[in-house]
Amino acid sequence: MTHESPVDILISEVGPRDGLQNIKRTVPTAKKIEWVQALAASGLREIEVTSFVPPKFMPQMSDAAEVVQSALHIPGLHVLALAPNLRGAESAAAAGTHTISMPVSASRAHSQANLRKTPEEAVEEVRKVRQFLDTLPAESRPSLEVGISTAFGCSIQGIVPEDWVIELCVMVAEAGAQAVGLSDGVGYANPVQVRRMFTALKRELGDKAGAAHFHNTFGQGLANVVAALEVGVTTFDASQGGIGGCPHSPGASGNIVTEDLVFLLESMGLRTGVDIQKLVAARAIILVGLPNEQLYGHVPNAGLPKVFHYATHPPTK
Amino acid sequence: MTHESPVDILISEVGPRDGLQNIKRTVPTAKKIEWVQALAASGLREIEVTSFVPPKFMPQMSDAAEVVQSALHIPGLHVLALAPNLRGAESAAAAGTHTISMPVSASRAHSQANLRKTPEEAVEEVRKVRQFLDTLPAESRPSLEVGISTAFGCSIQGIVPEDWVIELCVMVAEAGAQAVGLSDGVGYANPVQVRRMFTALKRELGDKAGAAHFHNTFGQGLANVVAALEVGVTTFDASQGGIGGCPHSPGASGNIVTEDLVFLLESMGLRTGVDIQKLVAARAIILVGLPNEQLYGHVPNAGLPKVFHYATHPPTK
Repeated sequence: MTHESPVDILISEVGPRDGLQNIKRTVPTAKKIEWVQALAASGLREIEVTSFVPPKFMPQMSDAAEVVQSALHIPGLHVLALAPNLRGAESAAAAGTHTISMPVSASRAHSQANLRKTPEEAVEEVRKVRQFLDTLPAESRPSLEVGISTAFGCSIQGIVPEDWVIELCVMVAEAGAQAVGLSDGVGYANPVQVRRMFTALKRELGDKAGAAHFHNTFGQGLANVVAALEVGVTTFDASQGGIGGCPHSPGASGNIVTEDLVFLLESMGLRTGVDIQKLVAARAIILVGLPNEQLYGHVPNAGLPKVFHYATHPPTK
Repeated sequence: MTHESPVDILISEVGPRDGLQNIKRTVPTAKKIEWVQALAASGLREIEVTSFVPPKFMPQMSDAAEVVQSALHIPGLHVLALAPNLRGAESAAAAGTHTISMPVSASRAHSQANLRKTPEEAVEEVRKVRQFLDTLPAESRPSLEVGISTAFGCSIQGIVPEDWVIELCVMVAEAGAQAVGLSDGVGYANPVQVRRMFTALKRELGDKAGAAHFHNTFGQGLANVVAALEVGVTTFDASQGGIGGCPHSPGASGNIVTEDLVFLLESMGLRTGVDIQKLVAARAIILVGLPNEQLYGHVPNAGLPKVFHYATHPPTK
């Protein structure tokens, strides 16, 4: 990012997608929109607001187009939506989504279970979406990103060879994704592996190397962020309250917690643009939509400490 | 540490001291000892088992001598105890403690509140303890360590100047402490500060630079561990279940969680000697002694993942 950028690190809030997708109950559309508005009002510049998936599989996402269209009215917000295939991408583009995010899984077992495709078939789907997007007028064409799931290991298959993960990233970029990130939806990553994998990603893809998506299942999320920062990662996915945990594992928290991530980055002198108090206030909205849902995060419980100050530019320390 | 060491990183378990000291209820002595035994059985090589403080201030530590004497029977265990002053150190030495740990606080406000001394007076207390220890026969002489409290900021005073913290460390080493560590009992530290402070500590003190003591109040504990590892810290304090939180702040967890720390280090290829399953089993014992106490930690909830393996020597990755 250039020195003129108002942020040093881009946080891509995924709660409305990764969080709500993993919860069986359906949040009313108006409540989702109110939540997205509050998240944006805290200063988050990018939100993955929904997923364009068949309603028969995920009825809780059947209002995807409406959520995107409402989010587009929020000034300055970059609106992401997930689409697992061409059909979803067509709907996402029709709704006016700024960036379409597609999942490609490096684990063959997970790819079959999640997408009913081999990884190679998923790459072909990316290529089809690229070809479709290229038919759209440039001014209304969504950009296309891919997150490589199970990039650090898989709960079904176990170890996923690192060379294969990077090879798959190259294939995905060649198929037309403009950014390719590495995702750890099961929380297996460790800082040594994170440094090694993102170093390799940047070496192979240059400025197409994308976001880090870490989960906090084993409490290692922010430790992995520190490692990723060291090797130049500048975009991190996170979710408010860490929602997005596996519904089959009580206590297994989900994504890294946006509130705690902002605290980490700002404390390190890295500007996020996010106001922590406004962000914490947004928790009340999703708790109305999902009563009794467990929200995680230390900063919301502890409050901001006396010595905390936001990062400044130029850095004061 | 040399290549012949069976561990790469020493975890100093502080739960029986830092944890129980911050809980008003008193755990029966037999239960404390059973807990220390179970912690040691998991492979922990060093445990801070108690605190030699006046029973009128902390009745829950009035069995300090008995706890130390029992812990001395555990083969291979290095037994630490905290002593705030000469009188406590005399009792600790009489009980046979291997290493006495003394607190010195860098914040003047915290030093007065906690020790009723200025930092300079606390340094003089260290000197008195050194002189006392030097009168003991070498074979039964405890070693002497100091952790500098509020080294990363203070909840009373706010910012604590970093230059002063390092100057104080030098004074403490000159007064006769064999190791001087940096402690963050309020969880304010961030990874940039951690790198800077431990780099300065090592530059000034060489191999007398001691342990990192981080709290997880704001969820930043393991992120700070990653930063400390980068600058050569090889000893970390941690507590089982993260006990040791401030009793006045519900939800403000305490020390970094030993279970999650072991997971981090072993995943990174750093040997701790600790068996995570045996360590998790020890939680049941302290929960009997402290029913309804909140224990933290992600690994105990999530269980070990399929891909987890302990670090080996030489490293395989």
